[in-house]
Amino acid sequence: MSLLVVGSVAIDSVKTPFGVRERSLGGAAMHFSVSASYFSEVAVVGVVGEDYTDDDMSVFRERNINTENIQRIAGGKTFFWAGEYGFDLNTAKTLDTQLNVFGDFKPQLSDSAKKSPYLFLANIQPSLQREVREQVDCKFVAMDTMNYWIESAREELLKTLAVVDCVIINDAEARELAGESNLIKAAKKILTFGPKMLIVKRGEYGAALFTKDSYFATVAFPLESVFDPTGAGDSFAGGFMGYIAKHDNLDEGTIRRAIIHGSVMASFNVEEFSCDRLRRLTRPEIADRVDEFRKFTHF
Amino acid sequence: MSLLVVGSVAIDSVKTPFGVRERSLGGAAMHFSVSASYFSEVAVVGVVGEDYTDDDMSVFRERNINTENIQRIAGGKTFFWAGEYGFDLNTAKTLDTQLNVFGDFKPQLSDSAKKSPYLFLANIQPSLQREVREQVDCKFVAMDTMNYWIESAREELLKTLAVVDCVIINDAEARELAGESNLIKAAKKILTFGPKMLIVKRGEYGAALFTKDSYFATVAFPLESVFDPTGAGDSFAGGFMGYIAKHDNLDEGTIRRAIIHGSVMASFNVEEFSCDRLRRLTRPEIADRVDEFRKFTHF
Repeated sequence: MSLLVVGSVAIDSVKTPFGVRERSLGGAAMHFSVSASYFSEVAVVGVVGEDYTDDDMSVFRERNINTENIQRIAGGKTFFWAGEYGFDLNTAKTLDTQLNVFGDFKPQLSDSAKKSPYLFLANIQPSLQREVREQVDCKFVAMDTMNYWIESAREELLKTLAVVDCVIINDAEARELAGESNLIKAAKKILTFGPKMLIVKRGEYGAALFTKDSYFATVAFPLESVFDPTGAGDSFAGGFMGYIAKHDNLDEGTIRRAIIHGSVMASFNVEEFSCDRLRRLTRPEIADRVDEFRKFTHF
Repeated sequence: MSLLVVGSVAIDSVKTPFGVRERSLGGAAMHFSVSASYFSEVAVVGVVGEDYTDDDMSVFRERNINTENIQRIAGGKTFFWAGEYGFDLNTAKTLDTQLNVFGDFKPQLSDSAKKSPYLFLANIQPSLQREVREQVDCKFVAMDTMNYWIESAREELLKTLAVVDCVIINDAEARELAGESNLIKAAKKILTFGPKMLIVKRGEYGAALFTKDSYFATVAFPLESVFDPTGAGDSFAGGFMGYIAKHDNLDEGTIRRAIIHGSVMASFNVEEFSCDRLRRLTRPEIADRVDEFRKFTHF
């Protein structure tokens, strides 16, 4: 079944302790869609400027990602983000953000996009997320958000949380959104805001799933070298949503396996700059890592 | 099979955001032995002062822990530690440490103690750990250590690491011991120091096992309220070593299940001050939590 994602398509400038890339493909919708494309059909709703070249667009073409809902603004510049990671690689220091065409982004959805059964609202303004959500007649919708919206647009965010099935955020965001330092308590509180499901991303420590009646947690795939964490969360969400769309099933077992697939996609994503590693991934490589996951967590 | 532990028996004064306990039973060997006593016979090698009352000793009697190797120093005072935890409950701020009789501790082992097949060297001076290790004709020996010894007695510590089978330390200690920020790389390096097995405790995030040929990782048991983290690591080690001693087996499956049992014991330990929760635990309560563990990690 097909999957729609709305979010940023960006040009990044990334510095890590291992290297610098001045102009790399970025944006939540890009990372998400490349990851999800290994599992299901994906379409992106987004916007780019005139500087986003045909060569840049090839990342979508290569992975058969539908781009008919990506607007190209004549004379505009693509959303630009520059960031730097220290040795712990856990948090990026933002050096520059230029919203450019993303500042006036008005998502436009084709008729077929409006019929997507699976929808992911990547991290954008909560009111825009809701606007897209209301246009799509889907069976399962998940969303991301960030500390900026939790702090500056809480009321809007709560309205959006009320109309989604699943929230996928990191642990600091979960604690901040709930105003509660204990993660289990925070999760319970967030579930009272509307969503039936909360997935908490914990970086190198793994991920946890909370619903009203169940709990699941996993460690992360162990990596000896993390090169560039940019887009890890979006690759996770892409693998998760892509797996669910592929199986067109929302039972607990599918959701759990979707989290493992999301974790595997994130583990590949961080091994190289941008989506370099994901672009040349193979399905057997994904399957191998899922197998390994089972082996090193079974007791 | 029986299990011997050498380490501190202490009086603690603990302050957490949830309360204060001025005089509570503490010490690594106490937490370890109470935890291990649910699985196997345990004997403690340690030292206390005259202030350690008969009522204090009842924690060992109640759990049938052998105390014939606990010296009682006439006129001496028991090792005292005072600490305080903030809301994140992850790191204790030490307010006071009085080594007292522990400062001159010379472990003395009975003949039967010297024949213990399983031995745990809790966090004490590495040279003392080695002295005990050399006296015991055991089939499996594990050790703990801390940043203080890593920094101040590295050469002694390396000599001790070379004569144990297993090291059980937390992730900050593993990174510091190896001088390597990536945990997987740090683990590989520590295994070159001698031990066949490294277990890394990651607090609320779980634990990981490294050997030359295998890897296992688990999340922690989810807790809505953590009351006092003192002794969590020693309860973990006690559950781990107790389970192994009970099954008298060192295959990978037993080791993995031992880690789960260690995690369960640690999860109970932190629910109340000192060993209050562990003292009145039942075997069915332990079995229930192990079952839950399986359910929330299976995929």
